[in-house]
Amino acid sequence: MTTSSVSNGAADRPPPVKSSLIDPDGGALVDLVVSESDAEAKAREVESLPRVPLTRIDLEWVHVISEGWASPLKGFMRENEYLQSLHFNCLRLNDGSIVNMSLPIVLAIHDEIKQAIGSSEKVTLVGPDGGVVGILRSIEIYKHNKEERIARTWGTTAPGLPYVEEAITHAGNWLIGGDLEVLKPIKYNDGLDHYRLSPKQLRQEFDKRQADAVFAFQLRNPVHNGHALLMNDTRKRLLEMGYKNPILLLHPLGGFVKADDVPLDVRMEQHSKVLEDGVLDPKTTIVAIFPSPMHYAGPTEVQWHAKARINAGANFYIVGRDPAGMGHPTEKRDLYDPDHGKKVLSMAPGLEKLNILPFRVAAYDTVAKKMAFFEPSRAQDFLFISGTKMRNYAKSGENPPDGFMCPGGWKVLVQYYASLQGEETQSPALSA
Amino acid sequence: MTTSSVSNGAADRPPPVKSSLIDPDGGALVDLVVSESDAEAKAREVESLPRVPLTRIDLEWVHVISEGWASPLKGFMRENEYLQSLHFNCLRLNDGSIVNMSLPIVLAIHDEIKQAIGSSEKVTLVGPDGGVVGILRSIEIYKHNKEERIARTWGTTAPGLPYVEEAITHAGNWLIGGDLEVLKPIKYNDGLDHYRLSPKQLRQEFDKRQADAVFAFQLRNPVHNGHALLMNDTRKRLLEMGYKNPILLLHPLGGFVKADDVPLDVRMEQHSKVLEDGVLDPKTTIVAIFPSPMHYAGPTEVQWHAKARINAGANFYIVGRDPAGMGHPTEKRDLYDPDHGKKVLSMAPGLEKLNILPFRVAAYDTVAKKMAFFEPSRAQDFLFISGTKMRNYAKSGENPPDGFMCPGGWKVLVQYYASLQGEETQSPALSA
Repeated sequence: MTTSSVSNGAADRPPPVKSSLIDPDGGALVDLVVSESDAEAKAREVESLPRVPLTRIDLEWVHVISEGWASPLKGFMRENEYLQSLHFNCLRLNDGSIVNMSLPIVLAIHDEIKQAIGSSEKVTLVGPDGGVVGILRSIEIYKHNKEERIARTWGTTAPGLPYVEEAITHAGNWLIGGDLEVLKPIKYNDGLDHYRLSPKQLRQEFDKRQADAVFAFQLRNPVHNGHALLMNDTRKRLLEMGYKNPILLLHPLGGFVKADDVPLDVRMEQHSKVLEDGVLDPKTTIVAIFPSPMHYAGPTEVQWHAKARINAGANFYIVGRDPAGMGHPTEKRDLYDPDHGKKVLSMAPGLEKLNILPFRVAAYDTVAKKMAFFEPSRAQDFLFISGTKMRNYAKSGENPPDGFMCPGGWKVLVQYYASLQGEETQSPALSA
Repeated sequence: MTTSSVSNGAADRPPPVKSSLIDPDGGALVDLVVSESDAEAKAREVESLPRVPLTRIDLEWVHVISEGWASPLKGFMRENEYLQSLHFNCLRLNDGSIVNMSLPIVLAIHDEIKQAIGSSEKVTLVGPDGGVVGILRSIEIYKHNKEERIARTWGTTAPGLPYVEEAITHAGNWLIGGDLEVLKPIKYNDGLDHYRLSPKQLRQEFDKRQADAVFAFQLRNPVHNGHALLMNDTRKRLLEMGYKNPILLLHPLGGFVKADDVPLDVRMEQHSKVLEDGVLDPKTTIVAIFPSPMHYAGPTEVQWHAKARINAGANFYIVGRDPAGMGHPTEKRDLYDPDHGKKVLSMAPGLEKLNILPFRVAAYDTVAKKMAFFEPSRAQDFLFISGTKMRNYAKSGENPPDGFMCPGGWKVLVQYYASLQGEETQSPALSA
């Protein structure tokens, strides 16, 4: 048993190991992949239906919905779900209970597709590669007011929001909602599918490891020692609270990210090195991919990031400074107040059952020569290394200060940026 | 007893007459006007405090808050209330219950006022005429991100939104929240104060009349016979449901409206004529002024309009097409989908206890020569007379079709527009 230096109520009565630490939203995990025995009949059914093309990002959402990350959502949103999401960031269920739902999860179609659908009550969803993905049933088509959607989701309509430019600006003027069925599990065949554990698989894994607490860490950047400090410190705090076997879910986002973010394959390799180098303990860590695309919608999006992890079985969620934030696309400032994310998360309807763990800021301690929690009393000793600064180090081949990141992880980044520069050097030569 | 042709569950068991038909949000009506015995001491207290100037619209909000229209809000919003309003359109109370709160009710201050406040924990609020209005205690000052506030409230950031241009664009970059105390009831001395019944006074009036149902009708336009048809039809429906004494709260908005709306004094005179001419029955109608300023924020604002009427004691709320809507300020379309208002209202957290009555569209029936409920089967017989069309009739002195509005009410409008044209004719002569 852990000897705890911190005492609180929870420590006196250690929680029992449960097979499920937290209920999925709506009470049951949604699973929309049809059984193998039904698949053949469904495959025949889809042949005669109007076809709706999916973009890469649409397919990521199909993946997300079909595995139950957005439980209790059973398909792309109809208008009543869309409006609740847009105005209230939550949905009221038939029993009167509330679940969080901060991002509109919607499918846009163009006029000619709407016309082709006509009065059909169901459509076939076709992936970017032309293959059939699934069926949307009992459909509802309604207007896609892009300006209003963008304003209410991002709190700005300034041009240059990555998700907006990629997935909304040129999308159709109609949204189609309905009940989703997917003919077979979504796979990407990029060598990373084994990291793509569904909420069901994650819950099984937590049970197998007899976790009595699961704390999720959402990220879309390489892991540096400040992150590691934080995750290890969280585990320590949970042990002190009386939990016997807290498990870290290191959960990088795997869907759409903006062009200057580090690509998923590089990040996964970097995360592997962090575990190999012993910065995080493989025995108490599960690394898996969260298949959602990224909105960069700050306080609105962080709720989605937390809600999806409830469905995956995590009962603790770590939130930092400016989650899902970015620079304002047209003004020289952060798009969101860096404190709003954790404030909004702590007040969000439907997230009451999740334990939110706000984290202290870590920075490079130039005296101790390692990443450490920032101490305002000796602020001058600390160096903040931003993502941009880190990328510039890696691009220039310059080493960051000792102790910023484990050597194996750093090497992955340096190689990635070197390969980019190789391409950049080549390109003019090729075009010349 | 009314013989009802429509039967339903409610008709079998008529509801009892209650002294209070619906609880105010938070359980108790907020009343922030200090007692006369305390007023003198408070008047001395305010002398030494930093002073915060109020605009006309700020004062309207002080009025609204102090009388409990925004119950359980006890002052201008602090940041945690502001964020909940902005993101969730509702507030969670300490007991875990939810109340609706869709508009941020905030007070903006400029940098120099913030500086002058320094570390003071309370401030004196000073009206546009220089007189002391009240005190704000336990203050909190936080950033006023105008772009985000506008985007999340209106679903657009297009220039030309009336409230934004009047009250936000040139307002300060800080918001100040705190607990409000008002030294004496807010009065306007415009000859209309007797119409400004507080929620408390309205509740007393409903009790005095032994109302067993109160249905509120929010408006900021002259009453035409289509409105009257609707209100009389609502009363009929309530009688059919088994209510014995339904009372109409005809509740024109009295705060800020856009420049081309009909001014309050003219509207009140027009409403008087409508009752004098017997179009609405004075015995079952209460005419009072709702002191809130108008946002023209469609689905977001209609929630506020309904929520405030809960606090005033109304348990039924009539909602029409495109409530609180307007044309898009820069595009040739409605700013909001005309159906979204009633849909959002019916789903809004915290409004579950209010009975929402969506109304059928009324238009001028050119065959029956009166305002009637629109019948799609003979659409060609109906004439829609928009606010703009009505104003154009009145401006040109042309009569609208017979039966559009009672003659007494119409005369008020014609005289108003004639007086405007007089001014317009005079102005160039004066400036020449």
